[in-house]
Amino acid sequence: MKDNSIKIGLFGLGTIGGGVAELIMGFPGRWKERLGVDLILHKAMDLNPDNASRLGIGQDQLTDRPEDITNNPDVDIVVELVGGTGAAREIVTASLNAGKPVVTANKALLATHGGELFSYARQRGLKIAFEASVGGGIPLIRSLREGLGANQITQCLGILNGTCNYILTRMTNEGAGFHDVLADAQRLGYAEADPSFDVGGTDTAHKLAIMAALATGRLPRLDQIKVEGITSVTPLDISFAKDMGFVIKLLAVLQIHEQQANLSVYPALIENSHQLAAVNGPFNAVFVHGDWVGDIMLYGAGAGRRATASAIVADILDLAREKLSGGSSLPAAALGRADFDPEPLAISSRDDISGKYYFRFAAHDKPGVLAALAAVLGDNQISIATMIQKGREQEGGAVPIVILTHEARESAVLKAIKAIDSLPVVDHPTIMLRVI
Amino acid sequence: MKDNSIKIGLFGLGTIGGGVAELIMGFPGRWKERLGVDLILHKAMDLNPDNASRLGIGQDQLTDRPEDITNNPDVDIVVELVGGTGAAREIVTASLNAGKPVVTANKALLATHGGELFSYARQRGLKIAFEASVGGGIPLIRSLREGLGANQITQCLGILNGTCNYILTRMTNEGAGFHDVLADAQRLGYAEADPSFDVGGTDTAHKLAIMAALATGRLPRLDQIKVEGITSVTPLDISFAKDMGFVIKLLAVLQIHEQQANLSVYPALIENSHQLAAVNGPFNAVFVHGDWVGDIMLYGAGAGRRATASAIVADILDLAREKLSGGSSLPAAALGRADFDPEPLAISSRDDISGKYYFRFAAHDKPGVLAALAAVLGDNQISIATMIQKGREQEGGAVPIVILTHEARESAVLKAIKAIDSLPVVDHPTIMLRVI
Repeated sequence: MKDNSIKIGLFGLGTIGGGVAELIMGFPGRWKERLGVDLILHKAMDLNPDNASRLGIGQDQLTDRPEDITNNPDVDIVVELVGGTGAAREIVTASLNAGKPVVTANKALLATHGGELFSYARQRGLKIAFEASVGGGIPLIRSLREGLGANQITQCLGILNGTCNYILTRMTNEGAGFHDVLADAQRLGYAEADPSFDVGGTDTAHKLAIMAALATGRLPRLDQIKVEGITSVTPLDISFAKDMGFVIKLLAVLQIHEQQANLSVYPALIENSHQLAAVNGPFNAVFVHGDWVGDIMLYGAGAGRRATASAIVADILDLAREKLSGGSSLPAAALGRADFDPEPLAISSRDDISGKYYFRFAAHDKPGVLAALAAVLGDNQISIATMIQKGREQEGGAVPIVILTHEARESAVLKAIKAIDSLPVVDHPTIMLRVI
Repeated sequence: MKDNSIKIGLFGLGTIGGGVAELIMGFPGRWKERLGVDLILHKAMDLNPDNASRLGIGQDQLTDRPEDITNNPDVDIVVELVGGTGAAREIVTASLNAGKPVVTANKALLATHGGELFSYARQRGLKIAFEASVGGGIPLIRSLREGLGANQITQCLGILNGTCNYILTRMTNEGAGFHDVLADAQRLGYAEADPSFDVGGTDTAHKLAIMAALATGRLPRLDQIKVEGITSVTPLDISFAKDMGFVIKLLAVLQIHEQQANLSVYPALIENSHQLAAVNGPFNAVFVHGDWVGDIMLYGAGAGRRATASAIVADILDLAREKLSGGSSLPAAALGRADFDPEPLAISSRDDISGKYYFRFAAHDKPGVLAALAAVLGDNQISIATMIQKGREQEGGAVPIVILTHEARESAVLKAIKAIDSLPVVDHPTIMLRVI
């Protein structure tokens, strides 16, 4: 052991950074027991001075110059919790440049600049640890990288955005509409004032990109991910799904087949008996299939001050142990590969995707309508597994006709929907959801 | 890198060892990609020569002298999969003695001799890796040790024996009796010819001991674990539990309160809405509570050739990376502590335990019986949450009266049962199960 302490430099003392400071400073005996040396919050920086004083961080621990942390010879590990992709990128680069490993929870940064940052870390023989970037407190990164490290991962299905899962859970339990629940979620602090990043699926896509990098060794570009959010999920579709034994969840979907990946974010129907169906409220979970391990699920709090701080400090402890033991990690151990490939992932053509589908048609309540719909589906080799038609909502109005298909090609499905939506007996665009 | 390959010495080519050999030999490109060097099955030993030939292991890879593996200067990592606590203990000790790290799936060995073996490994600066010893392919050991390494673990609830969970799941789904399902499970290969180690709870207790060591840094003695199996679980109790919204599962229970642990294995009632209630068939899961991360659950295949091989090869890859990077681990990193204490864990007095309880009384169907039972419960400060009395099973026979209690002290519960069982109106000993 080179020193009798490990010293942390921390950028950001907001919700998450404040939790990390509190955890590090609150349990000195725990770190001494687990590391054999002290773990010390040596320097911190935050633009809002109130954050530091609320946490009892003294003036001598504070700085307003980033280089007092990144270039500080006493700092062993830098923790970046400022968010965004501007200052955060500079902090990570400057820290690596000064020979310091970095811990970050910043999925946006890794999903957009991960290729460049991991390459630079590899050149410098340093690690970027990011357990908190996907699934909050769930030890997902380690599990994909190490625990399942002997497997070829063929599928990951993730409920990765607590805001969306909270909203969908309440819509399911209460039969309420999206906008009503969103407003309440904002009031209760489960959704941001501008919720578009969450409910539009972008946050889930960032996490999916990181998960895909761990599963394949290659970071996808964000434009390779097909993203749908939950804004168009209706209580009516949730209710039809329920009648057929399904719940609707926003999923990050990674499927790997013959070296090609399919990366999508969409609201999907999940059978009630599936482990993911019981993941409710703000909880997250990832259901992984590996060629040798079979099915694995990891479940826990995907966000929040304490759970996220738990993951960040776990990363700090790992990097601290590595430093104390004098181990120099393999270059790209960040992604569990000796040979992390900076080339982006090969993506399957969308024409090759197939699956089961849920359709809700809004058709006139007239003789022959069902025959017309069924004819289009049949022409496109789409066969029907289940059909529900409920009474008309209003006299003379359109009636919802719901169909679950057997396995069908997505290209055929999209073609059929286009044809059906142009039929004169169809009132509104067809709702299509995928079934897991 | 010191060499262009990592060489494995493997003891045991049975179900699990054969899977490990198959995985290592079957995917050379995968290991080269992930380690940067080849991973080679250098030497193997098994008492049955058919096992090796079935796997296509050549004569030059085989030996019948253990020291050809443990003392072989070419072997980098020894994998012990012979089971039991005799030869396995000698293999592990001899390997450590020769400076080789060890991978084992042997929960019986670790639960009975772990203190001695981990101490010896610590003295030698070596690791014993044991991901496969608890929860099969589930990355549980890493998660407790590293992913949740910043937490004080306060509770672990584990479904850790696939045989028991398979039997209880079928009893629940089919209303069948224990012995009928057991016989069928034996026929299908889900239970051993002598099932007592599984159904009596001993296997679960071994895994609980290892989990407790990871959560607390101290290995408990096996006699500190109170163990009940599933042999006395009846379809009647499963059915009553179902009526009240519960399932019955065999649980490994670790509770830690003020530095004292409660370690038990027992069949327990779990509410249908609990994540563990949906863990069915041969699957395993562990539900963990940490002071910062909150609730976490890990779910997957707890046994079987492929899932177990997945965990063993994950350990091999980790030790290989460590060797390739030249890192010398901290002495007791096996348990995630700098200071693994060989003293056994402090165990709470059973008088301090409290919880909710399920009772099934077999009482005569006479006026005043319920009042007599209720009086004994009241005298012992046990209050009733729910009661079910069903019609008599046979004319003049005893009727089952089922009671769920509110929180009560276990010492008072045991005293009350003793008093009730001595009442003249009570026909058979009371069935008591704990409620999670």
